[in-house]
Amino acid sequence: MKVGNKHYRTIWEDENKPGIIQVIDQRWLPHKFIIESLKSVDGVVKAIKEMHVRGAPLVGITAAYGIYISAIEAQQKKGYKKHILESVEKIKSTRPTAKNLFWAIDEMLSSISNLDDIDEIIRATRAKAEELAEKDISDCKSIGEYGFKIIENIYINKKGSGVESYAPTVNILTHCNAGWLATVDYGTALAPIYIAHERGIKLHVWVDETRPRNQGAKLTAWELGENGIPHILIVDNAGGHLMQKGMVDLVLVGSDRTTAAGDVANKIGTYLKALAAYDNNIPFYVALPSSTIDWEIEKGENIPIEERNPDEVRYVDGLYKNEIVNILIPPETSPALNYAFDVTPARLVTGLITERGICKANKVSIAKLFPDKIRK
Amino acid sequence: MKVGNKHYRTIWEDENKPGIIQVIDQRWLPHKFIIESLKSVDGVVKAIKEMHVRGAPLVGITAAYGIYISAIEAQQKKGYKKHILESVEKIKSTRPTAKNLFWAIDEMLSSISNLDDIDEIIRATRAKAEELAEKDISDCKSIGEYGFKIIENIYINKKGSGVESYAPTVNILTHCNAGWLATVDYGTALAPIYIAHERGIKLHVWVDETRPRNQGAKLTAWELGENGIPHILIVDNAGGHLMQKGMVDLVLVGSDRTTAAGDVANKIGTYLKALAAYDNNIPFYVALPSSTIDWEIEKGENIPIEERNPDEVRYVDGLYKNEIVNILIPPETSPALNYAFDVTPARLVTGLITERGICKANKVSIAKLFPDKIRK
Repeated sequence: MKVGNKHYRTIWEDENKPGIIQVIDQRWLPHKFIIESLKSVDGVVKAIKEMHVRGAPLVGITAAYGIYISAIEAQQKKGYKKHILESVEKIKSTRPTAKNLFWAIDEMLSSISNLDDIDEIIRATRAKAEELAEKDISDCKSIGEYGFKIIENIYINKKGSGVESYAPTVNILTHCNAGWLATVDYGTALAPIYIAHERGIKLHVWVDETRPRNQGAKLTAWELGENGIPHILIVDNAGGHLMQKGMVDLVLVGSDRTTAAGDVANKIGTYLKALAAYDNNIPFYVALPSSTIDWEIEKGENIPIEERNPDEVRYVDGLYKNEIVNILIPPETSPALNYAFDVTPARLVTGLITERGICKANKVSIAKLFPDKIRK
Repeated sequence: MKVGNKHYRTIWEDENKPGIIQVIDQRWLPHKFIIESLKSVDGVVKAIKEMHVRGAPLVGITAAYGIYISAIEAQQKKGYKKHILESVEKIKSTRPTAKNLFWAIDEMLSSISNLDDIDEIIRATRAKAEELAEKDISDCKSIGEYGFKIIENIYINKKGSGVESYAPTVNILTHCNAGWLATVDYGTALAPIYIAHERGIKLHVWVDETRPRNQGAKLTAWELGENGIPHILIVDNAGGHLMQKGMVDLVLVGSDRTTAAGDVANKIGTYLKALAAYDNNIPFYVALPSSTIDWEIEKGENIPIEERNPDEVRYVDGLYKNEIVNILIPPETSPALNYAFDVTPARLVTGLITERGICKANKVSIAKLFPDKIRK
């Protein structure tokens, strides 16, 4: 997508220096646009763990490039397989919830399982990481097309309904950032929005600020703004009220892990929005590439939920006198707890938008779209 | 309640200078404890509007003292009744949602409706404001006693249940600040907690930070800390997940206006917590003095909802290098919307805890407790 009219992906290999992976260091957005070079497995681990890059699909692709980097590093070492496997463990331990991380690593390992020559392994990991990145982009485009139909239908119905207050604008609420910045390009939940906007559907996005890390306020608002999409920032508390008032036509979110039966782990607070959408009869869709689906789990309660540093709750960073500073909100002595995700039960989900089409959030419907993926 | 072991109310008349009303300027908490002198109606209007004082009961009492101050000011003017009535309009226009503001002003006006002499009016307004402040305290104590029974019952049940993980601690979630700082003393939602703690029930409070103004993080965490109550700060997004995990036994909140049929306006986001409590079969109680009840309205959708400055969403204040600074979170160009309250439908409310006892959130049950108040 565009940053100041120039097209960017969120991750790419340096044209002139093979083996060096460039990413946008998202911690500084929206106030600073900083590109970071990842040159080592330790750098990749740090970038994922400390959320220089984030978003389940992008975490997966970054992990994939991390394996490529580990193969390059292994070239300099005796026992290069040992180095790659140690790197795998390090990268796997960064973040527990997003399924894509484990999926991408499995894909990478499969691609080299029959190889012994380190030069071949380097070539194979590079090709596979690129393939996964391209696949992420094409998946996001497909998700965008399928999701577009949902927005288009709401638009057509609204145009005919004579509702005047907000019509014929389609009002979409989103939580966290499941946009371009959470993937290699286009996004999951935001992909349908970009396509609908391009095709002339009048729409407007309510952006949940998404505490504690404010990915909505910082990332979603920024990428929508850079790409000309009308949006208004709200606190996470506000969505229910807007839904009660008829100011939301559709909720669109991403996912970090979805079970084979349709329970959806996503950024903490998603469950509350799903409850409100259900209570107000508003469609609640989850957009995800199938790499996010955990085929081994059916019950959402079995998804591991990451607990992060409580200081992410106690401190907030933002712009003060042109510098990014970190301020304390509660009393110094008050402790905090920081779960990063929650699970929305399938019963509250209207549908899943995948790269193969839209399905209901249940085992049968998911299995019908992905007969090749289901557990034997 | 206590601040560093000294007992304070949130509002009191200066002992040595009658007519000067002291309040705690809550904008600086928890980082600075600043007492402000209100000496004029304009000062009172500013203090309410800009939230030096906040919380429906305290807003009401501050308005009452504002009428007393207006009577003192009127002494210096020709047409003192005109001055008082103009002051009434100014004070009424500060904040639209909290019913207590209008209730307190009506009480004040009734107390002087038969008086013509300005000295008598001053004496009467002073006496009435003091009476309302005392009534607020005794109402909060009663609410505390009735609410205590709810906590005690949960404690007794939990002790017997053999649940080991969090038992026998009673885990209570609260939103915004409905504590000592929202009233003259003790609080509404927090009064039962203070009493239960005093009486040796082991409890722990989950404090919603309560965006956008962070009254939970700043005020509730602070007053609980000063009074020795164990608590943990969470983002507003987290409550649903904690409820799913069985980590919440009870939700206790206050109210800014409750209809005669039990719909509850309270800080934005309360509705989302009520939905989650309902979905997880957790009791959701609202603590309120009857001065918060709007006997003229039955449907919550008829409660006027205050819309505040969007910059309260875009900017956050907190402590940086020992100073309180205000930082920008989203892109400078992203707009925001800032509704201050939402309405929780009566169907999601387990009960109302009032100064006369606990009732169901419906017309018949409320009317039974307050037969003298219902509209003829």
